[in-house]
Amino acid sequence: MVLKNMSDLRGLIEGGPRKKLVLAAAQDQHSLGAIIKAWKENIIQPILVGDKDEIESICKSNNYDITGVQIVHEPDTEKSVETAVKMVSSGQADILMKGKIGSATLLRCVLNKEWGLRTGNLLSHFALFEVETYKKVIAVTDVAMNIAPSLHDKIAIVNNSVDCLNRLGYKNPKVAVLGAVEMVNENMQATLDAALLSKMNQRDQIKNCIIDGPLAFDNAVSLESAQLKGIKSEVAGDTDLLLMPDIEVGNVLYKSLVFFANAKVASIILGATVPIVLTSRSDSEQAKFDSILLAAAASR
Amino acid sequence: MVLKNMSDLRGLIEGGPRKKLVLAAAQDQHSLGAIIKAWKENIIQPILVGDKDEIESICKSNNYDITGVQIVHEPDTEKSVETAVKMVSSGQADILMKGKIGSATLLRCVLNKEWGLRTGNLLSHFALFEVETYKKVIAVTDVAMNIAPSLHDKIAIVNNSVDCLNRLGYKNPKVAVLGAVEMVNENMQATLDAALLSKMNQRDQIKNCIIDGPLAFDNAVSLESAQLKGIKSEVAGDTDLLLMPDIEVGNVLYKSLVFFANAKVASIILGATVPIVLTSRSDSEQAKFDSILLAAAASR
Repeated sequence: MVLKNMSDLRGLIEGGPRKKLVLAAAQDQHSLGAIIKAWKENIIQPILVGDKDEIESICKSNNYDITGVQIVHEPDTEKSVETAVKMVSSGQADILMKGKIGSATLLRCVLNKEWGLRTGNLLSHFALFEVETYKKVIAVTDVAMNIAPSLHDKIAIVNNSVDCLNRLGYKNPKVAVLGAVEMVNENMQATLDAALLSKMNQRDQIKNCIIDGPLAFDNAVSLESAQLKGIKSEVAGDTDLLLMPDIEVGNVLYKSLVFFANAKVASIILGATVPIVLTSRSDSEQAKFDSILLAAAASR
Repeated sequence: MVLKNMSDLRGLIEGGPRKKLVLAAAQDQHSLGAIIKAWKENIIQPILVGDKDEIESICKSNNYDITGVQIVHEPDTEKSVETAVKMVSSGQADILMKGKIGSATLLRCVLNKEWGLRTGNLLSHFALFEVETYKKVIAVTDVAMNIAPSLHDKIAIVNNSVDCLNRLGYKNPKVAVLGAVEMVNENMQATLDAALLSKMNQRDQIKNCIIDGPLAFDNAVSLESAQLKGIKSEVAGDTDLLLMPDIEVGNVLYKSLVFFANAKVASIILGATVPIVLTSRSDSEQAKFDSILLAAAASR
């Protein structure tokens, strides 16, 4: 099974119980807008932790009807994050979302050793794109969190993403490890890591996926390009997941798809006990909504 | 002056003398197709160096009428490159183009100390994109040649590109030095180099352009994004030239624009005494034609 469009994610949650999403520091207009929409469309059940007066005032002035939504009053922002995280670790919520608070503060709470959401895995960013010019959605990792991942980190990042894709219904997602070229070049670390990851996958050291690399972007997404270069690969031209060499490559690809290729994007943080929605202020309301949808579909 | 579309390059060569383009190892169908088209449209005057029989046979079977085109018979490929390069260094040609031969061989000849095209400058790749979703053409460097440029190399790469943009009519091109974030982050070398290049520009150590960085891709091309982040910059949202941190970032951006954003692209090698057209087999005939047009416009 593969997802053609972002909206195919809805099919994955239909019929199941509504996942509970807790919004930390919920006095945030942009997050609230997306959450209320997702709630009305039966995608999640929200829990709002934060300054109750501010939350109600935002909802009132934006005509968000939140009758029946649980609000936990905690005016102190740091404490509201702690409360939200604890609701997840105690099993009262299935998804964590960032409201009006810095990412660093939220992640510090997520990584708290006593009551956080640690699994022992590296946290990584997972983005899903719908682009008109590709035949299905394409996942990209890591475009926003790990700056210069080592080979060790890349293994963890692939594992996080493959686990997520497996939950989204992909049995053996096709993973392209990106390089500037498709040859192993000793002067390009990205191509060395790519070759090693591919071999580790062949040896079953990385499971539940098919990894090939190094592949340049065109080989990864265009069978014609791959054939022109004489590349024999199960992944080339049919990539489900693109692994980025580093954050600069990831960030440029992310932004160029959104700004120049009119891509739709959804993104979550993986590696904690639950998916975390950590969109930024500059993301569109659609991107926030789709991220919530992705988190709900990826939630166990 | 800025170029809105790729075809605006034509305006730059109209009325001037036709530049002479010498094709090395000219027995190459794809290059010949683009060259003949450019010749018919009065963009260049071609000189073909290579195996005369093969050249004529290719032209015959593709209905390319080359009556009046100078052919220099040199069946040995390496020698044909040497001959072509020497025609440039002796002033008989203004532009060098690669035919049916590896890039490495061509560049070795270009860098020959006795009869090559050395200027003492670093060679770098310069690509010009036309994307529907941006208000003007945007130049990107270096997406294909320098693997992991040092700060020293980046200065040379910017200088090469600014010199080229100046020749294309840009008085003070706006240069965005790309990072994954717009803040100076001591863990991200790209942001440190960006800040340093920007300051060197302020101190007039890099001239004839306005450099700002670090800028993330969205800040570089969208004023709205930049304003949302509170970035005050002459370059943000109005970038003419994007400087890439390394070849992986450049290559992914190049390929994603072509494959996912339907971009038109033209590219040349800068830093030698003349522009060099060094397109690859996988480039479309349109890209080859536009690259010839760019070389003609950028030629002195």
